[in-house]
Amino acid sequence: MKYPEALQLLIDQFRRYPGIGKKTAERYALFTLDRFQATDYDVFRDTLKRVQDEIKPCLQCGNLTDEERCYVCSDSNRDHSQLLVVEEAKDVLVIENAKTYKGLYHVLGGVIKPSAGIGPEEIRIKELLSRLKDPRHKEVILATNLSDEGETTALYIDYLLSKTDINVTRIAHGLPAGSDIAYADEITLLKALEGRKKINR
Amino acid sequence: MKYPEALQLLIDQFRRYPGIGKKTAERYALFTLDRFQATDYDVFRDTLKRVQDEIKPCLQCGNLTDEERCYVCSDSNRDHSQLLVVEEAKDVLVIENAKTYKGLYHVLGGVIKPSAGIGPEEIRIKELLSRLKDPRHKEVILATNLSDEGETTALYIDYLLSKTDINVTRIAHGLPAGSDIAYADEITLLKALEGRKKINR
Repeated sequence: MKYPEALQLLIDQFRRYPGIGKKTAERYALFTLDRFQATDYDVFRDTLKRVQDEIKPCLQCGNLTDEERCYVCSDSNRDHSQLLVVEEAKDVLVIENAKTYKGLYHVLGGVIKPSAGIGPEEIRIKELLSRLKDPRHKEVILATNLSDEGETTALYIDYLLSKTDINVTRIAHGLPAGSDIAYADEITLLKALEGRKKINR
Repeated sequence: MKYPEALQLLIDQFRRYPGIGKKTAERYALFTLDRFQATDYDVFRDTLKRVQDEIKPCLQCGNLTDEERCYVCSDSNRDHSQLLVVEEAKDVLVIENAKTYKGLYHVLGGVIKPSAGIGPEEIRIKELLSRLKDPRHKEVILATNLSDEGETTALYIDYLLSKTDINVTRIAHGLPAGSDIAYADEITLLKALEGRKKINR
């Protein structure tokens, strides 16, 4: 099967995305050809250019923004006493979508992973320590993932802050809503048991 | 949830594609931000520009190409006695992928659909008749879809060619490989029964 070169290149572009295989990439490329008017191509190209040029990390927390500070950091109504520490900017989006957390964020931009040469200096830990000089911040909530690297990073930050009077907490791990104990993995079950609580009555 | 404007626009671009919902579009947009280097953005933009500028219908058969004639029409080893008539250029891609058909194609660019104002003049039927003046073409295989419009279009072309000595055939419809009779729809079953054959023994 020989596609015209430009069409094959477009298929290759779509194949880079997670979960898009050969068939789906072909479908998207053909959909583009089929449905795009001249202006649609221009809009898609302009959008890629704008994303490339405009989107950058918030100078304060590392969240994605097109200004100096992201909309969370710029919002004086957010609770400045809490800093929720996450690995990646996309974690902020997920938490914001849930609309329950009212504090601020700190995006590390990765986790400590010595095997890949990523030490504490490679992620935004010193920026976190620097922010914590602001006396409004009272609590750091560690929301790194429940992986070896996420746990190591959380423990390391907890250690660094143990000498300060910042209140350090770790988000709870356990069985997610709608899950079935029969299908839970061992680590989740272990965390669910460790984190057990008395029932309020 | 407020995304930076350019990021929201990129999410909107991905949402246009079939089967991509809000969550998946967000995932692809974030993947772009996360993994794309400056050159990756340039390549994606250039690819869209090239697809827009270069890909056009083959002047002869209507298949997608970046030259005057597509690679099928330019291939002197293809069997010029057969013209397989399909609705869309993407049907050619599917048939070519199966690597069994060795003849030429004719892409109609649609089907007759009076309710949408699409008559025989709106699709490439006169181009088909014009091609059939070439005495090398002996057979027209109608491979429009098994829909009301596809059937109507096939019957119309069959009628037009009934006065010529072109051999007109319709591809077989019936139960697909790997399917289970218990789950077949009525039209497929009807076509499978109508098209029944004696077993060679």
